[in-house]
Amino acid sequence: MERKITPIVNDDISELLNRYGTCDLFKHQFSVSGVGNDAAAIFENEKYRLVANVLFLQGINFDLTYTPLKHLGYKSIIAAISDIYAMNGKPEQLSVSLGLSQKFLTEHIEQLLEGMKYACNVYEIDIIDIRLVPSLTGLTISATLLGSVEKSLLVRRNNGKPNDLICVSGDLGSALMGLHLLEREKRVLKGNETLKPDFGTNNEYVIERQLKPEAKKYVLDFLKTQKLLPTTMINVKNGLMPALLEICKASNTGCRIDQQKIPLHQNCLKVASELNYNPLTAALNGGDDFELLFTIPLSEHEKIVDKLPQNINLIGYLTEPELECKIQ
Amino acid sequence: MERKITPIVNDDISELLNRYGTCDLFKHQFSVSGVGNDAAAIFENEKYRLVANVLFLQGINFDLTYTPLKHLGYKSIIAAISDIYAMNGKPEQLSVSLGLSQKFLTEHIEQLLEGMKYACNVYEIDIIDIRLVPSLTGLTISATLLGSVEKSLLVRRNNGKPNDLICVSGDLGSALMGLHLLEREKRVLKGNETLKPDFGTNNEYVIERQLKPEAKKYVLDFLKTQKLLPTTMINVKNGLMPALLEICKASNTGCRIDQQKIPLHQNCLKVASELNYNPLTAALNGGDDFELLFTIPLSEHEKIVDKLPQNINLIGYLTEPELECKIQ
Repeated sequence: MERKITPIVNDDISELLNRYGTCDLFKHQFSVSGVGNDAAAIFENEKYRLVANVLFLQGINFDLTYTPLKHLGYKSIIAAISDIYAMNGKPEQLSVSLGLSQKFLTEHIEQLLEGMKYACNVYEIDIIDIRLVPSLTGLTISATLLGSVEKSLLVRRNNGKPNDLICVSGDLGSALMGLHLLEREKRVLKGNETLKPDFGTNNEYVIERQLKPEAKKYVLDFLKTQKLLPTTMINVKNGLMPALLEICKASNTGCRIDQQKIPLHQNCLKVASELNYNPLTAALNGGDDFELLFTIPLSEHEKIVDKLPQNINLIGYLTEPELECKIQ
Repeated sequence: MERKITPIVNDDISELLNRYGTCDLFKHQFSVSGVGNDAAAIFENEKYRLVANVLFLQGINFDLTYTPLKHLGYKSIIAAISDIYAMNGKPEQLSVSLGLSQKFLTEHIEQLLEGMKYACNVYEIDIIDIRLVPSLTGLTISATLLGSVEKSLLVRRNNGKPNDLICVSGDLGSALMGLHLLEREKRVLKGNETLKPDFGTNNEYVIERQLKPEAKKYVLDFLKTQKLLPTTMINVKNGLMPALLEICKASNTGCRIDQQKIPLHQNCLKVASELNYNPLTAALNGGDDFELLFTIPLSEHEKIVDKLPQNINLIGYLTEPELECKIQ
């Protein structure tokens, strides 16, 4: 079956963001707008200073029924790190603001901060600010992560050309399957606190992908080792489809994806089968995978053929724009 | 009447922020934590890069019943600019994330962005990123403002010494009186859309202080002209009392404030009288004034005597810590 990918973005909103958030003539240092990229970039002293902001809202980005606060703290920072990685940058400093309703006690805040600090230790980031403000409605996490990248190494979304090869890290859809398992157990246990959740046998992988994801530093390490500079890169946070559309729109290309090559983890396949869910749909439209999708020129083909590590897969190529985006 | 100022900050929380948000050994460039300051500062290339984050939450920081979205956009940026000014810095780049529930239409978002853009034009700031994310509960505004300051000109809160003179810009308490007028009319008009709000005669000043405040750039201009480097500075966003306590705690001093010298606007006095509210209480504990409070060494006395502009007032001095904080 061939699928044509169609955008779901509201054109009015897209136009609005471009109008207010991008500017031809910056008053200060030359900047690259974050609108249409995973982070904004400010040029200074032969480097780009990167700025990524992640806003995590209760009920949208997390459900505290089954999300431990420590994991949540960790995950919110991973989301921001993945944005910096998508610009080929190194994360450096974190500034956090938390909106907290009265039900959050000091110990809750500490658990959240503990998770953030743990992520910062693993990914070598300095916490430079923490602000707490009152909230009427649960928990709000705003994480601003600064990073940097050498001038010549900045990667955006708009430099893809027809025939560029499309690669993606890890596997897709697992985080969504983990979410569905957690939601199922939430429904089963509702109002019955004596029961314990049953996530099935050996489903730790998808649960962990949802609750404690990691940022894919190994992609940047591979690119560096192979002296490869991607023409585009993007943080896959809402599934493969929106990521491909963003790349193709920014680069003015189409794309062809080989459906057989979309990486799916065996645990994702198993849980999808149990839940009667199409795993491909999870990969295309699932969220929170935080994989990195990137494109490289066909001329660099020999740097990846037989050299891609197991956790990076070649899944297709960019085309002329009139060929549109298709998965076949 | 003499008032002793006592802190209201939760010690546990304060300890937590210090533990997680400050660090003796930063992994990257030397940084000054934003915990205990209005913004964080990262040292690079003989300058400090400043990072301020403001989180505005519906129902806490604003009430959309009487707050035009354009004004709200403007005000949220003013709050962040005031944080950068309090570090003696120049605001430069703005990155915004908005959490929006479904009731917000494209035109609402545009009004909000229009207000932000207007503030950015007035204060010479580049908008480098705008992100929109869905929300279940109204509107969330996260504004990250970057700025810079020369190495030798960074001002923090911890360098005050006994006998330093305490100055404050503008006037205090007006924004709270504006808020009370708006809240009164909201109660009066509740359920009756045919009535129009009646804010009384000539009360535009306090209403404007609440709905469309300005950042006090004239303080930085004065300091520069007089070649004055304050020993401490702080953005007065929750009234004079918390601001004084922060300065005295960070600098390990006490203070004496001359109650007669606390600047109160005649419109604030008028409205306070009408509402039977103590204007001094508004000045001490009101919010959203965004005035700048700063201290200068006694030895610089001649640079301010007879030279202070009308919109900056000398209100007291720092003391040895055992004398505590008092208003008399």
